[in-house]
Amino acid sequence: MKFTKLQSVGNDFVLIDPQGEDKDWSKLALHMCHRHFGAGADGLMLILPSAKADFRMRIFNADGSEAEICGNGLRCLIHYIAANNLIGNRDELSIETLAGIRNAQIFADGRIRTTMGKPMFEAHQIPVAAEPDPKYYNGQLISDFPLNINNRRLLLSLVSMGNPHAIHFCTKSVEEFPLGEVGPLVETHKAFPKRTNFEVANILDSEHIKVRVWERGVGETLGCGSGASAVAVAAQILGYVGKFVYIKLPGGTLGVEWDGHNDVYLTGKAEIIYTGEWLKDETV
Amino acid sequence: MKFTKLQSVGNDFVLIDPQGEDKDWSKLALHMCHRHFGAGADGLMLILPSAKADFRMRIFNADGSEAEICGNGLRCLIHYIAANNLIGNRDELSIETLAGIRNAQIFADGRIRTTMGKPMFEAHQIPVAAEPDPKYYNGQLISDFPLNINNRRLLLSLVSMGNPHAIHFCTKSVEEFPLGEVGPLVETHKAFPKRTNFEVANILDSEHIKVRVWERGVGETLGCGSGASAVAVAAQILGYVGKFVYIKLPGGTLGVEWDGHNDVYLTGKAEIIYTGEWLKDETV
Repeated sequence: MKFTKLQSVGNDFVLIDPQGEDKDWSKLALHMCHRHFGAGADGLMLILPSAKADFRMRIFNADGSEAEICGNGLRCLIHYIAANNLIGNRDELSIETLAGIRNAQIFADGRIRTTMGKPMFEAHQIPVAAEPDPKYYNGQLISDFPLNINNRRLLLSLVSMGNPHAIHFCTKSVEEFPLGEVGPLVETHKAFPKRTNFEVANILDSEHIKVRVWERGVGETLGCGSGASAVAVAAQILGYVGKFVYIKLPGGTLGVEWDGHNDVYLTGKAEIIYTGEWLKDETV
Repeated sequence: MKFTKLQSVGNDFVLIDPQGEDKDWSKLALHMCHRHFGAGADGLMLILPSAKADFRMRIFNADGSEAEICGNGLRCLIHYIAANNLIGNRDELSIETLAGIRNAQIFADGRIRTTMGKPMFEAHQIPVAAEPDPKYYNGQLISDFPLNINNRRLLLSLVSMGNPHAIHFCTKSVEEFPLGEVGPLVETHKAFPKRTNFEVANILDSEHIKVRVWERGVGETLGCGSGASAVAVAAQILGYVGKFVYIKLPGGTLGVEWDGHNDVYLTGKAEIIYTGEWLKDETV
């Protein structure tokens, strides 16, 4: 079975074109994403035909769970489409995901600008349990949702980008934050019925934010597109940054645009690392 | 550039047949072994012609440094040779390494038995600095070489299998040993002028030992063949086990045979995970 390994901002994926074949993709993701017994990846993606858009993507985390969307995965998929000439000379295309249809532009220098959809802020949209009663900043953003984790009080801003994000703006450097210890406890906290992604962020100036991401079902990653978007949106509402911001992730930098009302736009690069022919028995 | 990804006991390698081409293999190892921006592996191996044996192998760690040998890497290389029919119907072959020539047998069930060479015990062979003055157990094994690491006193048995190994037999479970914290400090301790591999071991019974390995230049790995050999040899000299022992590593089990005088033999399996075509610019 052929596959392609890609990465964007250090978030890496194996991409498969099933060409009509059906498999237990969840189980295959567990096998292929394993870093020592498999190919090694943060997730497995499928490129599929779509009745509503140019293509449809499905994405499975390394633990086998299916995700609604991943911004870096989407960028990798679009890079794959462009590199394999699947849309001819067009520089705009649309991708169907579990979080809705995403439009994208491909620039001449290889950067890819994608819509991440509109951010959502309501408790049932995140989703987050209504206990404790959430307070909305400016009537829009749940910004001080309190969690007590390991004797540490976290005040979280909550944004859905089609998937849930809980953001903690730190005064101390994010490098010092014990993400490996706190991340899994926030992810699986009972306040979040569908679990949650978790970001810690430092505002550097009105155009730059430094971010570390704990991804639901994955663990800490070098970069996460929907996480970068959620942080930029929350920071803009809170008045920390303007309408365009660079999100500095451990694996690289992404540009995020948001006009305060409509879709979020994310701009960054992706690359193909290698193409492969998987030779292990997937049913083991 | 084509490559093959293999693993044995969870120790994984990218293997390249350069077919006469020369490259900066050290730099390529750094790129290809990276788990998010590369293919991801514990090491990069080359299969080369040899004037002294059937083939010659070179092996580079993920940090770009060249290793003398790696037992699991050797087993992967032999599996590659068998799977690609490079020696016809023969079931015995020899491989030239920086640690000498290694003979191997391939069993019908796919298990591979390799000579790991003779263990060496002298301070200058490990090598280990003569301070503190090493005590030899039974005149053969340096078995209580003391190191003070983070207020922890380690008594180490020292064995060279062509590469240096420092072994700590624990009374507490090896699972509880803080290997990520102590490993790098032992590896780079001034007592070891060529750095050292570091193993923590629990004697389970006279035929089974549980082992965790900190590999020089790599970090903790799921399994290490020369480390398994070194632990079995030291345990046999100390009277803990007999001439055949199973070494249970996090990534699987290896059989180790030693008659007390001559070569050590290691038996285990290896597998091809995928074949790949590397598409990144290696010079970046």
